[in-house]
Amino acid sequence: MKLTIIGAGSSYTPEVMDGLFKESCFDSAEIALYDLPEASDRLKTVHDLSNRMAYKKNIKMKIHIADTLEEALKGASFVLSQFRVGLLEARILDERIPLQYGLIGQETTGAGGFFNAMRTIPAAINLVRAMERLCPDAWLINFTNPSGIITEAIHRYSNIKCVGLCNVPYNMHMDAAKLCNVDPERVYCHMVGLNHLSYLTEITVDGKSVMQELIDKNMFDGQLVKNVPKVPGISKMISQLQLIPSPYLQYYYFESFMLEKELNEIKDGLGTRGEQVLSVQNRLFDLYKDPKLCEKPAELEKRGGAYYSTVATMLIKALLGHDSINMPVNYPNKGALADLSMDSVVETNCIISKNSVRPLTYGPLPPQIRGLICQIKAYESLTVEASMEKSKKKAILALMNNPLIHGYNNACKLVEEMQIHFGKYIGELR
Amino acid sequence: MKLTIIGAGSSYTPEVMDGLFKESCFDSAEIALYDLPEASDRLKTVHDLSNRMAYKKNIKMKIHIADTLEEALKGASFVLSQFRVGLLEARILDERIPLQYGLIGQETTGAGGFFNAMRTIPAAINLVRAMERLCPDAWLINFTNPSGIITEAIHRYSNIKCVGLCNVPYNMHMDAAKLCNVDPERVYCHMVGLNHLSYLTEITVDGKSVMQELIDKNMFDGQLVKNVPKVPGISKMISQLQLIPSPYLQYYYFESFMLEKELNEIKDGLGTRGEQVLSVQNRLFDLYKDPKLCEKPAELEKRGGAYYSTVATMLIKALLGHDSINMPVNYPNKGALADLSMDSVVETNCIISKNSVRPLTYGPLPPQIRGLICQIKAYESLTVEASMEKSKKKAILALMNNPLIHGYNNACKLVEEMQIHFGKYIGELR
Amino acid sequence: MKLTIIGAGSSYTPEVMDGLFKESCFDSAEIALYDLPEASDRLKTVHDLSNRMAYKKNIKMKIHIADTLEEALKGASFVLSQFRVGLLEARILDERIPLQYGLIGQETTGAGGFFNAMRTIPAAINLVRAMERLCPDAWLINFTNPSGIITEAIHRYSNIKCVGLCNVPYNMHMDAAKLCNVDPERVYCHMVGLNHLSYLTEITVDGKSVMQELIDKNMFDGQLVKNVPKVPGISKMISQLQLIPSPYLQYYYFESFMLEKELNEIKDGLGTRGEQVLSVQNRLFDLYKDPKLCEKPAELEKRGGAYYSTVATMLIKALLGHDSINMPVNYPNKGALADLSMDSVVETNCIISKNSVRPLTYGPLPPQIRGLICQIKAYESLTVEASMEKSKKKAILALMNNPLIHGYNNACKLVEEMQIHFGKYIGELR
Amino acid sequence: MKLTIIGAGSSYTPEVMDGLFKESCFDSAEIALYDLPEASDRLKTVHDLSNRMAYKKNIKMKIHIADTLEEALKGASFVLSQFRVGLLEARILDERIPLQYGLIGQETTGAGGFFNAMRTIPAAINLVRAMERLCPDAWLINFTNPSGIITEAIHRYSNIKCVGLCNVPYNMHMDAAKLCNVDPERVYCHMVGLNHLSYLTEITVDGKSVMQELIDKNMFDGQLVKNVPKVPGISKMISQLQLIPSPYLQYYYFESFMLEKELNEIKDGLGTRGEQVLSVQNRLFDLYKDPKLCEKPAELEKRGGAYYSTVATMLIKALLGHDSINMPVNYPNKGALADLSMDSVVETNCIISKNSVRPLTYGPLPPQIRGLICQIKAYESLTVEASMEKSKKKAILALMNNPLIHGYNNACKLVEEMQIHFGKYIGELR
Repeated sequence: MKLTIIGAGSSYTPEVMDGLFKESCFDSAEIALYDLPEASDRLKTVHDLSNRMAYKKNIKMKIHIADTLEEALKGASFVLSQFRVGLLEARILDERIPLQYGLIGQETTGAGGFFNAMRTIPAAINLVRAMERLCPDAWLINFTNPSGIITEAIHRYSNIKCVGLCNVPYNMHMDAAKLCNVDPERVYCHMVGLNHLSYLTEITVDGKSVMQELIDKNMFDGQLVKNVPKVPGISKMISQLQLIPSPYLQYYYFESFMLEKELNEIKDGLGTRGEQVLSVQNRLFDLYKDPKLCEKPAELEKRGGAYYSTVATMLIKALLGHDSINMPVNYPNKGALADLSMDSVVETNCIISKNSVRPLTYGPLPPQIRGLICQIKAYESLTVEASMEKSKKKAILALMNNPLIHGYNNACKLVEEMQIHFGKYIGELR
Repeated sequence: MKLTIIGAGSSYTPEVMDGLFKESCFDSAEIALYDLPEASDRLKTVHDLSNRMAYKKNIKMKIHIADTLEEALKGASFVLSQFRVGLLEARILDERIPLQYGLIGQETTGAGGFFNAMRTIPAAINLVRAMERLCPDAWLINFTNPSGIITEAIHRYSNIKCVGLCNVPYNMHMDAAKLCNVDPERVYCHMVGLNHLSYLTEITVDGKSVMQELIDKNMFDGQLVKNVPKVPGISKMISQLQLIPSPYLQYYYFESFMLEKELNEIKDGLGTRGEQVLSVQNRLFDLYKDPKLCEKPAELEKRGGAYYSTVATMLIKALLGHDSINMPVNYPNKGALADLSMDSVVETNCIISKNSVRPLTYGPLPPQIRGLICQIKAYESLTVEASMEKSKKKAILALMNNPLIHGYNNACKLVEEMQIHFGKYIGELR
Repeated sequence: MKLTIIGAGSSYTPEVMDGLFKESCFDSAEIALYDLPEASDRLKTVHDLSNRMAYKKNIKMKIHIADTLEEALKGASFVLSQFRVGLLEARILDERIPLQYGLIGQETTGAGGFFNAMRTIPAAINLVRAMERLCPDAWLINFTNPSGIITEAIHRYSNIKCVGLCNVPYNMHMDAAKLCNVDPERVYCHMVGLNHLSYLTEITVDGKSVMQELIDKNMFDGQLVKNVPKVPGISKMISQLQLIPSPYLQYYYFESFMLEKELNEIKDGLGTRGEQVLSVQNRLFDLYKDPKLCEKPAELEKRGGAYYSTVATMLIKALLGHDSINMPVNYPNKGALADLSMDSVVETNCIISKNSVRPLTYGPLPPQIRGLICQIKAYESLTVEASMEKSKKKAILALMNNPLIHGYNNACKLVEEMQIHFGKYIGELR
Repeated sequence: MKLTIIGAGSSYTPEVMDGLFKESCFDSAEIALYDLPEASDRLKTVHDLSNRMAYKKNIKMKIHIADTLEEALKGASFVLSQFRVGLLEARILDERIPLQYGLIGQETTGAGGFFNAMRTIPAAINLVRAMERLCPDAWLINFTNPSGIITEAIHRYSNIKCVGLCNVPYNMHMDAAKLCNVDPERVYCHMVGLNHLSYLTEITVDGKSVMQELIDKNMFDGQLVKNVPKVPGISKMISQLQLIPSPYLQYYYFESFMLEKELNEIKDGLGTRGEQVLSVQNRLFDLYKDPKLCEKPAELEKRGGAYYSTVATMLIKALLGHDSINMPVNYPNKGALADLSMDSVVETNCIISKNSVRPLTYGPLPPQIRGLICQIKAYESLTVEASMEKSKKKAILALMNNPLIHGYNNACKLVEEMQIHFGKYIGELR
């Protein structure tokens, strides 16, 4: 079994490796690490650390650097994609450019998420075109953000089997278990929506719903919120909504609060989240280079991405046939959410079993969230089409459909900014 | 044939009467004028003017004041509803309260439209309950704003036959004819969407599409825009959209421009649109009282409501069986727009014939407008339920679904403002 | 305006011409008559009679024979298709072959209808391929049977604008008017379903429903039944169904009665309907050849096809822009009938206006007819695919979906019979 | 944990008990056996045998007879329903009456299935009404035939949690494993359709599809067929269908063969299947009464119902929270099969976990089976309504929608027969 990691020069990679080491089923696996030439230094660092970690744990996994994409993909059973087009430098622009227009600056949501998607779709399509030639039966596990949009692009334009992953659902599951003070295995969470736009519709402990009780006790204040700032009063909002939103929903429901927070962090010299992550990452690579380091450093936690390797290994194990699992992933709808088309990629619970992913039915979306989900899905689909057709018109229409953009004039200006800053990744829109 | 006008004390009524006088099929009709006791002076003024107008035209129509709702409705074949709960004074609050929160202040859109709906739904339901007893087979022609939401409330909670009317579609039709420089009869416009949220998807002259040509020539700059300010650059936006939006869509696509415009008008002492209309109305009633006035005064044009009587008489004539017509009205969807549920009230072309209204099929909505329409329909349905169930929770959820409200905190505050200013109309939300 | 008749050597053509002569809008039209070489004698006969009829009525229409399909189609605005692949000889086989298996033998229903469809689809596709080159903007008015299936094939595999016509809906309308004893103009009938599988869901006189009354009075005994034998007790069945079925539904609801009737007619020497029609047709052509005949002979009535020219001229006039009409035709669903896919061709009321056909919405089908309509639509779609893909497998699956075939073994045998008798029209199925 | 068996006097019960004994999680369960007074002898026999079996296996389960339904249901966590209204005597009529009309006589399909449903729905509704009072949170495991229709009736008219079970899907799974010559655990079968009208759309071994290979090798000749006679040539039919049908589909695809088989068995003195089962049952009870018998007798196999206890215990264990499973059961659709309404009960793979059943999405049905499934679902829904509304009209419409009835006249006669023979169970239809 060969597993290829695309974008392996990421600071996340030791976290993934650590997860793989824990599962005996990967013991005899071959791990191919691949990244672009500009990341070759970091790739080497990650490779060496990984081998030191394996050695210490006495694991025989064959971990090597693939010099070419061809070498990386050939014969792969799983491809784990976690690259970031333009690296953190681009992410920082994703965050800073919208702020200049008084708009939320975030790497997966709003204008920043759009820039990110437009840069990333061409690269993701390149990857699957190569997979079609070199490993057409492999599963692509896509962590590359914005994960839902990338997964939709791949499913619409390729037959490569692809699951979009995100660690938010698992974090919410673990938080729910903590709130209930029970073992996570006794908890079931049902999730509906889109990536970074999903909601828990049900939390049960031992098959008995505890959701109303948790809501009534205002248990969600700052609990199910990670990576994104804690919003005061969210617990009261949840008691109106009667559903538990992903923390990313705060950008929609508390837009002005979140915007102010971002502006203040810049004013206070903290910089954007991307800038903070950049310095964490630099520190991490300094640590990684230390030839005495033989394990994942504690510092990595700060990077975000808790449970990142957990969900990846759970998914791969299930696809390999080790116990089927029920897990929220990004996958084509097929009727699970009645308000979206059959082929829209949604984030909802699926049964993952040997070589198979099947969404569970939910029915019509609750009326209080149906509108926003349909609205954002329209934005996502137009974004995918804008990228694939290199259409400036569709790019503007996509942004007009995003409620965080606030209208046509911003849409036009942001598309211009995008062309200026990211033209080399996106190509010339017409 | 008895036609009852509810809210007949309105300054619009002479316009309606003028329309009825033009159609010989109403010659022998009985017209019952009804309004609330507080409007009895204005009702008398309108009644007297109407009779002078009829006398001058030598028309034998029996026009009389009905003292009670019972007297007004008994035996009616058509009920034309055009009331405004709380009168223009309430409209002015609808406009001014949101502005205090930096939000669009408008009588049918955003927070103001929500206040208006919440005040009006209980009164509309009272009306149809009376109709169920007194004239269960009559058609209710609803002009009362927000027309789409009121029509949805009536269809969901009563079996009274009801069509929601608005003069915007007809204005757009006439403007299209003017742009093409042809007789309006040669033009066909197809409209999809919701009231004050609709789009022309097709304009044909003699069965040949002229839409692309009109768009390419930038013909829509300030042309298809009435009642709402002209936005610079809309023509370019339309060339992206490839559909002709109702002028009310400007509140969504050019929100900040529209907001600034409203704030400037207040700063400049012009007041809100409602305040401007109030002074027009007062001048009109001064004119109406003149016993020498025997016709609709030219001043009435300024009131807005062009073609108001045209669409009403067209509709009533068709329902009576005089030629069936194809006309955009507000009516339950029944499959016309594939993205909305069967029973959602939509604004789209219907065939109106004797005692029958049937929407024409359209299919899936264009992706560039699907999201917003689904989003606003979710807002509308939650508004109807909030009113009928007197639910504070649903009122907040409704506003959270309206993109002009910008999130949860505003939603909560606006519901509080509503309770304070309009509690007597709305009842106590729980 | 040029109107081309494909299959003009038919005995029906004088009926069509008679209809065109009645409408002044065709006065200056050019009529191109086209048929295959083997029908040149009959074509000449029809041509000469048509010109004598025009001369007598003093009509200046230019009626001429087109020697080639190219000449026939070039510059046409309307193409009226009424051909029969294999002529009446093939129809007689359509009737006789199934009877050998104890199955209904009918030209549009059951196995016979399937044979007919499989022979005709390739010819219809040839026709539209030629239209795509020679008159891409022309409307194809398809009378060629089985009209619904042929129209579906054309819409799925070509962009030529095509309406499928049948005279059954109009006959039912006229019969309803006769039953109500009122002028047909005062009657409105709403029809849903598929061609030769449709139902009246509503009959109104002056906008008031009279359906229940007619049903309660058992008015439908043999009234709304033409071309197909009268079934005793149908009136009682209709009182259960609460809908008025097309007479062709008798083949499904009274299969054994209809089968016995067919077998008896053969035993009694009457022959099949096709054989009866053949002798009527021969007599008609004897009459047509008489140079003194200058009008449509009364004998033509017996041929069936009442109102054939009426519906064709109504449709063409409406497409030309002379008054829009509401008329049941065969056209892609687009959401009119909620239980069928958007692109399924259905027979239901459409608004026909200048250059445009739009189905009216109906909503979900009544449960008592939903199953059969879905079943037959599955049969129809598989038939179209079987023909286009030359797939023996799909041919068998199509017949397995037709409840008049009674299972797999008959399906296999009938496909073999088809290959033997009609192979030259159908091609080799694989 | 209390498990109640309704209809416990059945000869199947020792099979169920045997299954429960195998699972340690039922060790401390209380088993309440209930049947109608007329079955008290058989109930006592079953009770005594069950206790002897438990004693021999040294199992402490508390197995007792409940004298009243109230006593049986009070405090139950699971209710297993397996009763037969009118006993085998009624089944024999279900088989014999249709044969008199030349129609398939079968206990769950065609006219016999209809009789059975009409007798059983009132009793099933009585049961759930009692459960609503006595054990509103219990799960009802419904084996009572026709299982799909009964489950639909319960879901439409009660909130009791109910799963419809059948052993056919599990038998097909086991047969598929045998065909592949692998351990059943390595096989995954996906099933879509309705009870006794379902199809395998996928068979995988270790996640790799083997369906095409099995089809190409003609592996299905008489293999996946139990309880119903083996039809020659079915393997060839399956190669056209490209799906593996439930053996009950043979009644539709090979109707005349199956009918002949039934008639021959009567002619040959074998009697109907019900008559054969009756004598098996009598022999079984003779065995059961033997106080030395302490285990399920081998003879029980002949009764049919292989894996009956397997599926029941699998389901109950999963609902109790012991491992979630993926298993075809009868449950409301909720979007799993796109062609059927949200609330239609379907037979398809569901995830069963603690206190929860969720169908897996499938999407649109394959065109070759869509029609029949929609047709039979229409029949089933009308049957449920006919019973609940005591409507003769709907009973006739239901039968008109069943392709094994062949039209209106048979429908009328069969409803009359039903009233005569089963009136006491069904009540008076109006």
